[in-house]
Amino acid sequence: MCQLLGMNCATPTDITFSFTGFAARGGGTDHHADGFGIAFYENRGSRCFLDNAPCCRSPVAELIKHYPIKSRNVIAHIRKATQGALELENCHPFVREHWGRHWLFAHNGDLKDFDPALRGDYLPMGQTDSERAFCFMMEGLRMRFGMAEPDDARLFEAVADMTQELTRYGVFNFLLSNGRCLMAHCSTQLHYITRAWPFHAAHLIDADMTVDFARTHAEGDRVSVITTRPLTDNETWTRFQPGELMLFADGEPRLRQRIDIPEDIQRANWQNLACA
Amino acid sequence: MCQLLGMNCATPTDITFSFTGFAARGGGTDHHADGFGIAFYENRGSRCFLDNAPCCRSPVAELIKHYPIKSRNVIAHIRKATQGALELENCHPFVREHWGRHWLFAHNGDLKDFDPALRGDYLPMGQTDSERAFCFMMEGLRMRFGMAEPDDARLFEAVADMTQELTRYGVFNFLLSNGRCLMAHCSTQLHYITRAWPFHAAHLIDADMTVDFARTHAEGDRVSVITTRPLTDNETWTRFQPGELMLFADGEPRLRQRIDIPEDIQRANWQNLACA
Repeated sequence: MCQLLGMNCATPTDITFSFTGFAARGGGTDHHADGFGIAFYENRGSRCFLDNAPCCRSPVAELIKHYPIKSRNVIAHIRKATQGALELENCHPFVREHWGRHWLFAHNGDLKDFDPALRGDYLPMGQTDSERAFCFMMEGLRMRFGMAEPDDARLFEAVADMTQELTRYGVFNFLLSNGRCLMAHCSTQLHYITRAWPFHAAHLIDADMTVDFARTHAEGDRVSVITTRPLTDNETWTRFQPGELMLFADGEPRLRQRIDIPEDIQRANWQNLACA
Repeated sequence: MCQLLGMNCATPTDITFSFTGFAARGGGTDHHADGFGIAFYENRGSRCFLDNAPCCRSPVAELIKHYPIKSRNVIAHIRKATQGALELENCHPFVREHWGRHWLFAHNGDLKDFDPALRGDYLPMGQTDSERAFCFMMEGLRMRFGMAEPDDARLFEAVADMTQELTRYGVFNFLLSNGRCLMAHCSTQLHYITRAWPFHAAHLIDADMTVDFARTHAEGDRVSVITTRPLTDNETWTRFQPGELMLFADGEPRLRQRIDIPEDIQRANWQNLACA
């Protein structure tokens, strides 16, 4: 399995602190050594940094740790390959354009035998179940809404429908963003924290590093961080329920819905988690 | 105006040497200081590194100079903004997907009043004439070929037709690749060189750096480098003719065609060049 990291903020914020802890898991404090990716939105576009070197010793990861790029939506992923070769085209996050915006998607899980017939609006470049799922969802958004971009509530509803469909194939923890909001779904394991005024100091689990957010953040700032496993050891992270889909906007959870995961799949997912 | 750099190779090759000379022009030896981008294909996908800091002092450019990423097709661009704000979404190369491949595009020039009605298959995220032109061309490929991916000859013909249409709007030097071949069109200024066995040493114009390619390249290697202005001072670069469109594959020029640029546009282009 892989690990996910997402950030949604009220004001542009850099992710160097969280990424430093997260990156250590890419072959350092954990075994997710099959490449990584991190993408930062700026307005409607994004820039994505990918590498197939283990995150804990990638020069690209080193750059990200020391180059404070400010963004309101970030998605990162470290890979432990289950499907697809160790090629760059299989590194998450995946990126596509719709409604003149970048859409970013990263997945932790394993969708078994998921091979949908796609129209061709979006086709995978690599071999992963994850990229197929993303193309399926993007095509679904085009089919539902055509050229009329939906608001967050209608978008969330559509993503919930498609998530319901996809969870039948197996473990489907994911992060999806259009640069305006960030959606997160948990099949097995996902946590989040929302930091707001008054901010406090936080200490990483995976590296001996503390940052006092009270010194770096102002009153209007608000930041939600979503990740597979908590990144800090002195804060309270909220665990997603299995099947929980949430939409974050302006740095806080705004919408949530429980996706009904079939019982046999849920059982298999837990077994999968126990092995991961 | 901006500057372009492209590389098409028979075998995966790193571009650190050429990029070192090219990057110096991004605010160092030349005044193209409004951001840069470089994208490397690996199989059907690519990874793109963008920054809105001047290329000559960007930490991202520094990484690229020292991280030898091997690729068969590379497109890079340093920006001197003519249209669109200094935002990242306006940095080239632009990326879209079709036929399960990334398509990359970078433009040097200025298309005046080019504002086509787009169907919505591809929409710009930024405000540049360049991204509009790219979306127009990608839509054109979808309209011509549907889901049946053409061979290089038919692709070249389609790109030539669309280039003919676009040159009516002004200066349209561009690089376009699908990861298999690289097409280059010259309105005003573009050069190329093809290096093959036996390789020789090359010395950069913009930095005191020499590489002896005879020591780093083998007999089957072949590399074409395409750039706005020659990068080395001890090799013979071929100047594109105005209106010349070329397709490079396996490291060498394979197809060429002369696009007919209307005389008044050509005259305006030269004046434009004189001011650039």
